[in-house]
Amino acid sequence: MDVVLVSPRNPLNIGAAARAMANFGFRRLSVVAPYAPMWREARSAVGAPEILLKAAETASLGEAVAGATLVVGTGTLTYRKPEQAVVSLPDLAPRVEQELARGGRVAVVFGPEKHGLTRDDLSYCHILVEIPTDARQPSMNLGQSVAVCLYELATRANSGAEPDMRDAELTAAPSGRLELLAGVVEETMRAAGYSPRTMQAANRHDLRLLLRRLGLPERDLRRILGLFRHILWRLRHASEGGGKTN
Amino acid sequence: MDVVLVSPRNPLNIGAAARAMANFGFRRLSVVAPYAPMWREARSAVGAPEILLKAAETASLGEAVAGATLVVGTGTLTYRKPEQAVVSLPDLAPRVEQELARGGRVAVVFGPEKHGLTRDDLSYCHILVEIPTDARQPSMNLGQSVAVCLYELATRANSGAEPDMRDAELTAAPSGRLELLAGVVEETMRAAGYSPRTMQAANRHDLRLLLRRLGLPERDLRRILGLFRHILWRLRHASEGGGKTN
Repeated sequence: MDVVLVSPRNPLNIGAAARAMANFGFRRLSVVAPYAPMWREARSAVGAPEILLKAAETASLGEAVAGATLVVGTGTLTYRKPEQAVVSLPDLAPRVEQELARGGRVAVVFGPEKHGLTRDDLSYCHILVEIPTDARQPSMNLGQSVAVCLYELATRANSGAEPDMRDAELTAAPSGRLELLAGVVEETMRAAGYSPRTMQAANRHDLRLLLRRLGLPERDLRRILGLFRHILWRLRHASEGGGKTN
Repeated sequence: MDVVLVSPRNPLNIGAAARAMANFGFRRLSVVAPYAPMWREARSAVGAPEILLKAAETASLGEAVAGATLVVGTGTLTYRKPEQAVVSLPDLAPRVEQELARGGRVAVVFGPEKHGLTRDDLSYCHILVEIPTDARQPSMNLGQSVAVCLYELATRANSGAEPDMRDAELTAAPSGRLELLAGVVEETMRAAGYSPRTMQAANRHDLRLLLRRLGLPERDLRRILGLFRHILWRLRHASEGGGKTN
């Protein structure tokens, strides 16, 4: 299981997140676009956990979760309307367990301290998880929120089960493959004459959410990708030589 | 449910503990023998939670848990041999729920950052709870440990059930009553001629653990207390007037 911190700011929180990972036996940490001085400070702290020193650093969340087949976004949903399924933390384990059992890879994503994950960040998430907190004080400290989520998953999502390899073809396609497909679909739309105005950021956003809702296994993704590439080729071919045959 | 912090040192940890309490809907905090300057700093921090301002301050753990019928000690048990039952955190909720359902009062006790609860602190605990952590990094940060324990109890120990009042007499006696009984038993032992050498701290320690193991309901405690008081009276009476009748 991967833990991903998006733009964490407070070195103490970064350290606390890494500490919680070590406590609950998690090893892989990715940090997306960290604030450079704070990130340096957290890593150079005396006794900084090995996890911090080995953490992957990426410029975008898309890169950080490219290999994940189930991306779980965290945060308080009090002030926003979620665009995908929301699971309460005590109900998350069976979903994660199932994903791990069929050979998938799970990433749990935590947003920056002040405002949490942005709408764009959330579009990379298959599901959102909510820690059931008191309505009067719903917002948790980052380090504590990481600890609570990892405790729950470590104790209740049994990852010890051998992945069922017969299901490999049926495993959900990883996030990076979905992005590839989204890119080809967009290219196809442009080639099909969609105006640039309707092809703005909002479309990639909705497309991302749609592809994750489908839960496409790699086998189906490959077919759909092939289909769109074929259409794309046709569209380009048609526009090049269109005048001659018709 | 009460949260008790024994001699917390780091104001950030004190603040984090109070924050976690607010997140999970806990209201009553007791702080035992805090380090005065840090305690002042934590309470005067900008935005200090109301919980901190209203926290009870006691000189001893005995006072802090006097009203509790189930005292749960927390901490890593890697380096010590526990003297009472140990429950893994994911299994704690049913025990706490049962206690609350029969009208009992539960206190969860957290030790100081450096060394955790002392042997003497632990003698006030009916059970110990262990957070299942990785053997390579078992020791948790105080604020995170509070968050994880309170998350577990808030989501899985349903305290909404109405206490069953028919059971009031069968509810375990609160910690303060057990201390009273321990005192009377010791007095009786002295009156019965036990030498002061055998009456040292170790005895009170063992007596405390023994009384908590029994899980005495108030009704039985009252009887036993009456019995010992009677014996005590007799012993004193006998030694005063012993020469006359025998």
